[in-house]
Order: sequence, then C-alpha cells, then structure tokens
Amino acid sequence: MTMIDAQQEILSVGIVGGGLIGIMLAAGLVRRGITVKVYEQARGFREIGAGMAFTANSVRCMELLDPAIVHALRSSGAVPISIGDHQGEGRDCLRWVDGYSEPSKILYQLDAGIRGFEACRRDQFLETLVKILPDGVVACGKRLEKIHENDLDDKVTLQFADGTFADFDCVIGADGIRSRVRQHLFGEGSPFSYPHYSHKFAFRGLVSMGNALSALGEFRARTLNMHVGPNAHLIHYPVANETMVNVAAFVSDPHEWSDKTSLVGPATRKEAMRCFADWNPCLRGLIGFLPENIDRWAMFDTYDYPAPFFSRDKICLVGDAAHAAVPHHGAGASIGVEDALCLATLLAEVWVSTRGKSSTIRNQAVAAAFDTYDGIRRFRAQWFVDSSRRVCDLYQQPEWADAQRRLKAETCFEEIKDRSHKIWHFDWNNMLEEAIQTYRQKMGA
Amino acid sequence: MTMIDAQQEILSVGIVGGGLIGIMLAAGLVRRGITVKVYEQARGFREIGAGMAFTANSVRCMELLDPAIVHALRSSGAVPISIGDHQGEGRDCLRWVDGYSEPSKILYQLDAGIRGFEACRRDQFLETLVKILPDGVVACGKRLEKIHENDLDDKVTLQFADGTFADFDCVIGADGIRSRVRQHLFGEGSPFSYPHYSHKFAFRGLVSMGNALSALGEFRARTLNMHVGPNAHLIHYPVANETMVNVAAFVSDPHEWSDKTSLVGPATRKEAMRCFADWNPCLRGLIGFLPENIDRWAMFDTYDYPAPFFSRDKICLVGDAAHAAVPHHGAGASIGVEDALCLATLLAEVWVSTRGKSSTIRNQAVAAAFDTYDGIRRFRAQWFVDSSRRVCDLYQQPEWADAQRRLKAETCFEEIKDRSHKIWHFDWNNMLEEAIQTYRQKMGA
Repeated sequence: MTMIDAQQEILSVGIVGGGLIGIMLAAGLVRRGITVKVYEQARGFREIGAGMAFTANSVRCMELLDPAIVHALRSSGAVPISIGDHQGEGRDCLRWVDGYSEPSKILYQLDAGIRGFEACRRDQFLETLVKILPDGVVACGKRLEKIHENDLDDKVTLQFADGTFADFDCVIGADGIRSRVRQHLFGEGSPFSYPHYSHKFAFRGLVSMGNALSALGEFRARTLNMHVGPNAHLIHYPVANETMVNVAAFVSDPHEWSDKTSLVGPATRKEAMRCFADWNPCLRGLIGFLPENIDRWAMFDTYDYPAPFFSRDKICLVGDAAHAAVPHHGAGASIGVEDALCLATLLAEVWVSTRGKSSTIRNQAVAAAFDTYDGIRRFRAQWFVDSSRRVCDLYQQPEWADAQRRLKAETCFEEIKDRSHKIWHFDWNNMLEEAIQTYRQKMGA
Repeated sequence: MTMIDAQQEILSVGIVGGGLIGIMLAAGLVRRGITVKVYEQARGFREIGAGMAFTANSVRCMELLDPAIVHALRSSGAVPISIGDHQGEGRDCLRWVDGYSEPSKILYQLDAGIRGFEACRRDQFLETLVKILPDGVVACGKRLEKIHENDLDDKVTLQFADGTFADFDCVIGADGIRSRVRQHLFGEGSPFSYPHYSHKFAFRGLVSMGNALSALGEFRARTLNMHVGPNAHLIHYPVANETMVNVAAFVSDPHEWSDKTSLVGPATRKEAMRCFADWNPCLRGLIGFLPENIDRWAMFDTYDYPAPFFSRDKICLVGDAAHAAVPHHGAGASIGVEDALCLATLLAEVWVSTRGKSSTIRNQAVAAAFDTYDGIRRFRAQWFVDSSRRVCDLYQQPEWADAQRRLKAETCFEEIKDRSHKIWHFDWNNMLEEAIQTYRQKMGA
C-alpha cells in the first residue's frame, strides 16, 4: 500500500514574478485546483504603459487557461490592430511599406484574419487581470533573494529580501527578461543567466493624429504600418482611441548599451532625424512631428546565449525569463501564453495523477512534467527568439537602398509570411496532446 | 462567329535546353497533345556525372507530368539516399553531425519518410529520360542565337547559330543557369541576366569505401551525413553501389571566381586540408583520403539578382534558367519539376480551351497562362534560392567553434526543419487548382 502523506493533498506552486504571464499562469493553476502563490518584487502593479499585442491563437490559449483572462483583456480596452482600417473588412492585416524610396508604396500585406491581432496597453491589462485571482494569491514587495533546492524529496524554498521564506512543491520563474530564477539555474557568473544587447535600439514617441494625418495621409495614419529600409525600420499605429500615433524607429547601434540598470534612456528628435536623413519625405515628415525629447529603448534578448534548458528538477522558467526576444514579430507575450498553457495542463495532470500519493512520486511527477515542458517548448521558443532577430535583418536589408538590388530585398516576404504563419497558426491542441502523452510515458503510465 | 484559322489546330511550344527539366516538360506536353520541339546546344546528351536527388513530392510531380519519367528515373539506377542505412527502417533521413568538436556527434536528424529522397546520377537519368520522347522532338547541336518577338499576334521565332530558324506559339527557356533565354528577357547588359558567384566553392572528390570506413566507421560511411562547423561544411554519401563515398566540402571564398567560362577548376587535397585544419580528426581523416588532385566547383546562383519576372508575353523561364540556387537543400531540380508540372498543366488548359479559336485568342491565352505561372511560381522559387543560401549560413555559423556559443548555433535546427518541410511537403494539388482558377479568371471564363 502507498503511504499517504497528508501534505500531498495539495500541490503547491510558487510563481516568481507578477507580470502578465505569471498572473495568467496563476489563474490557470487556480482554476485547476492547484495551490498557487505569486511573488512580485514591486510594491504594486504599475507596469509601464507600453502597447502590446496578442495573436488570435494566444487569445484562445488564454481562454483555455481561464476564460476570465480573455474577459480581462477585452474589458481593459483591447482593440483589433485594424481598428483604424475603416475601409477594411474587419480583418487584421500586417503591412510593409517602402520607407526609403517611393513614399508609402505597399510592398506586402499579410492577412491575420478577423481579430487576428489584439492590441492593448500592458498596464491596463495587468491591472484588470490581477483582479481575477482570489485574494491572497499575489504578494507584492517580495524580491527574490535566493532559491534553496535541497534533496529532490524536499520542498523548494524561496528566500526573499525581506528575510521571509516560503516552501513549495515546485517553483516557476515568470520574472521576465532579467529573471532571478534564471540566474539561479545557470549561475550568477554565466552569460546564459542574462539577456544581451542586440545592438539595436528604438526611438519611441507619440505624434498627434492631426500631425500624423498630414505626414502619412488618412489611410496610413489610422492603421499599423511597418516602413522598411536600409539598416533601420519604423513601425507606427494609432493609440488612445485614434487621437495619437505611436512611433517606434529601430536603428542599429555598434556600441554597447552603457546603462545596465535601465533599458530606457533619453534621446532627441534630432538624433532620430539624423538616422533617417536619406529616407522618403513621408517618413521624415512623421519623425519631424515627434516631440523634441523622446525615449531610446534598448533591445535586449536571449539570442546570443539561449537557455541550455527551461527546467531543472522542480524549477522552471516561463515567458521572457526563459526566452526574451526583440519585439519585431509583435508576439513575444503570445509565446509566453503558450508556455503558460502547456505548464498549467501538465501541472493539472500531475495534480490529478498524484493526489494522495507519496511525496516521492509527487516530486518525480513534477520533475517529469517540467522536463516534458522543456522538451516541448524550448525549440519553438528559441526559434522565436532567432526569428525575431531575423525578420529585423530582413526589414533592414541594405539592399533596400540599392535600385538594382531591391528585387533581392523584396524576395524576403515569402519568408516573413512563413515565419508569421508559424507563430499565428500554432497548433496548441497538438502541443497539449503531446505534452500529456510524453508526461505519461515518462511516468511509465 | 469566330474565325477559324487552320494553324490554331496545333499548339506549338519551343523549348530551349535539353537538360532534365526541359526533357521532363517536353514529355508532359507531348502527353497532353501539345506539339513540342526541344533544342539542345550540345551535340549529344553527355551531362556531367554528378549525383543529384529528388524529393518524394517531386517524384509525384514527375508522375503527373508523365509516369514514364518515374520509370526512367527508377530504371536509371535511382536509389533512396538511405541506401546504406541497413539498420534503418527504410526511411530516408537527413543527418547533421558535428564536424568540428566532438567527432560525428549527431546534432539533428530529420525524417524525410519512406523513399523521401531518391538519388541518381544526372547523366544516367538524362540518357534514359530522353528515350521516352517520340523521335524528332529533340534536336541537338542547336545553339540559340537570338529570339525574335514581333507583334503579340505573331509567332515567336528562334534563330540558331547554325543559321536556321523555327517558329512557335510560345517559347520556354529551360536552358539552365547560364540561360540565353534569360539574357533575351532582361538584356545582355543587365545583371539580372546572369548568375553571380555566391563566394562559396566546393572541393569535390571520391574516397574509396574502405578508406571512408576507416575514417568514419560503418554507419557514417554508408549513409549521407552533413558535417557542420565554423565557416565551412562537408557532405558525404555513398555512391557507385557503395564502393565509393562522394565528398563535397563547402568553403567561403572572399575572391571573385576568375574563370567565367567554367564553374569547375582544379584543386588539391592539401588546399582542402588547410581549410579544415582545426576540425575534428574524423573529418580530417576523411579529407586526407581524397586523391591528391581534386575538383573545385564554384557555387553560382541568382540570389543577388533574382529575375524580375519569369515570363513576358509568350516567353517564359523554367528551372535553373528562372532560379538557380546553391545546392544545400539538395532539391534544386525538384523545384524545377514543380515548375514544369505547373507549366504543362496551364498549357494543356490553353490547348483545350483555345483549340480552333482565333490566333488572337490563342496568343492571349498563352500570355495569360505564362503570367499565371509567374504569379504562382516566382515567390516559392525565389524563396528557395534565398533559403539555399540561408541554410548554408546556418551550417557554417562561426559559433560552432565557440564552446560558449554552440547552444546558440544549435537553435538553428528548428528553422532548418521548417525550411526542409516547406520544400518536401509542397502542396502540388493546391498549386494546380490555383493555376487553373487564376488562368480562367484572366481569360474571363
């Protein structure tokens, strides 16, 4: 007979990091009857007010995690990215235009389908999202100091900067691009523990819709467009109920990023103008309407030093903590949502199949689930990191500036289509079936 | 009433170039009741004896062109590439191994399915293939001098170096990487008329099976393997009924290729050894068994200057004449077979739908068919050219030589899988349906 240990009547999961992915994962676990605690180092949820987008597929993954997540997304003001495309058919579309030679000439369009992309403000979504969790699940002001892993049979202990400790059956690092849990897994001295500078940064700022209309015209100003050109590119889309246009201009930077403590620094419109001096008048006009003082955002990612593994024993990484990408696919968070769904499904399987069993079996099951997660998610997620760099290189081909070589540059769109489709048309059902099957094989069931 | 012109009782197609794609296309057209003539500049069919491979999908395309093509392929000694994999399950497999650090460590394997790749000798296949055409279809010793296009209502006239002329309803350039028809379409002074040096060449030579066994061991020597490493890679596979191993070592070359008249030049084993001096002993051992004097093959392609279009009015390009790629996907000919099937299907549609109609309608129909072909084939074929360069870059990542960066290099295989699948799993049925539908729309039917 199996020895029944009273403690195995719950499965306890500690999540480090109360960002979007940590909270969504917590919601998915709570809904599956798992005991969860989320630790956020900030005093409260005051995320930066940047825009972000989710693929239609990742919204479906949210729904499978917990339908309340989708409700939170919609009630926090998420809109299809085609919101301004009043002539359209309600289909979301990515559009690449010539930023360098012929003003605004459409080079390629990719139909993402009806509500194919939903955009929202990160801070607004997170604020609404946190409210779907039961009271007491999230603890703020808890900065992770150290993780204590003892024997596989023991709990994993989180030690916080405020001197407190907490024990869990397993721990998930959802603590973003500068993850402490990642540092614990790979060691503080290892390059694999940190994101690295991609040697691209973005000038970011807002332009009033009136000014955007005069630079871009009605159709362009009210829709999302990517302007490609030599060694740089620019994306803009309407925000704030079409009263403003958000502009991000990505440029190459041979230098190191000097301030390791902050990925955002000050910049000026003049600097941005210098980077796009040769570009077409339409694009220069738009940049000319940026405020005099704007932001410079460094693009860091895990491309150079990808995580050797996403899990070890009873600790694993999810979202940007596992794989941080530059933002050119507009889908970094969507990949994190896929991670969360995979993990929630596997942990539910652990919970159901080991309830009342010995702690030895429970611990083996958690390690098997995390190992399965690593095997299923790592290739795709690291491909996504590589692909985000690759599409940037394609948007910024030097050949865009060479009349004789532009045709070569234009052949890139077949590849961009394939890469986008791989992200958008992800078969989450297959992922979940493979996850459960692999987990059961590992457990010898 | 439509004026019936007796000449419209046949549809005549002139094919320039009697290589594999030209002959297969001719067979497909003959089988569809179309009048074809193939002009080959050589005095006879003495192709170089290089090995080549076809994907399972392209063999299916051959069958749709004419089942006799597949019969010719098999009876000319085509074998699955897994021929030496006697421990295998009869499935063809691509395998990437570490050429630099750990000798022969398997980095990745990709299952191409049962008879997923068939390899043959180009010369043997062509010799058998030519025999399936009726007598008089192929004319040898006919070097194209000039093409005369007059009014759209007139025939297209081919003028040969021997002073003869021939008129056709339409002309297809299947005359390979140094296509004359391509030069006609884009102009003799245009860079788009010529392939360009990829700045990679291959050392090529044969090693006896006995020596290969001592360098590589039983399993490696008898199967196809790609050895990846910094700035170079090497492929080998058994040939000649497993008595020899064919070796091709691809290296970078910052210089221009000096001899524009020949893509093959002499090289020595010593030069090859120098390029792989740091590589692992297993790989150096194999190179050490090459003969003292070997070949150096320049890799030219159309990457830098892709064809602006594959067809204009009643002239079009097919296979390498339209899109020449470096050989790293092992599928250049397969893409040409897809082209040929698309063209044969469209011209059959022209033939059936315009039989007995006026020459004006016939000429419009041919131009519409060729324009449809361009729209359907160009993106995929030019993607293939780009992709062949890209996988070479991935095989030759400098990071393979850096212990700390190897993990980054290894993330490439997800992309290599996607690219291979895009080639192997091509939906020819969808291509044909789209081709016919688009053609009919253009003709207003």
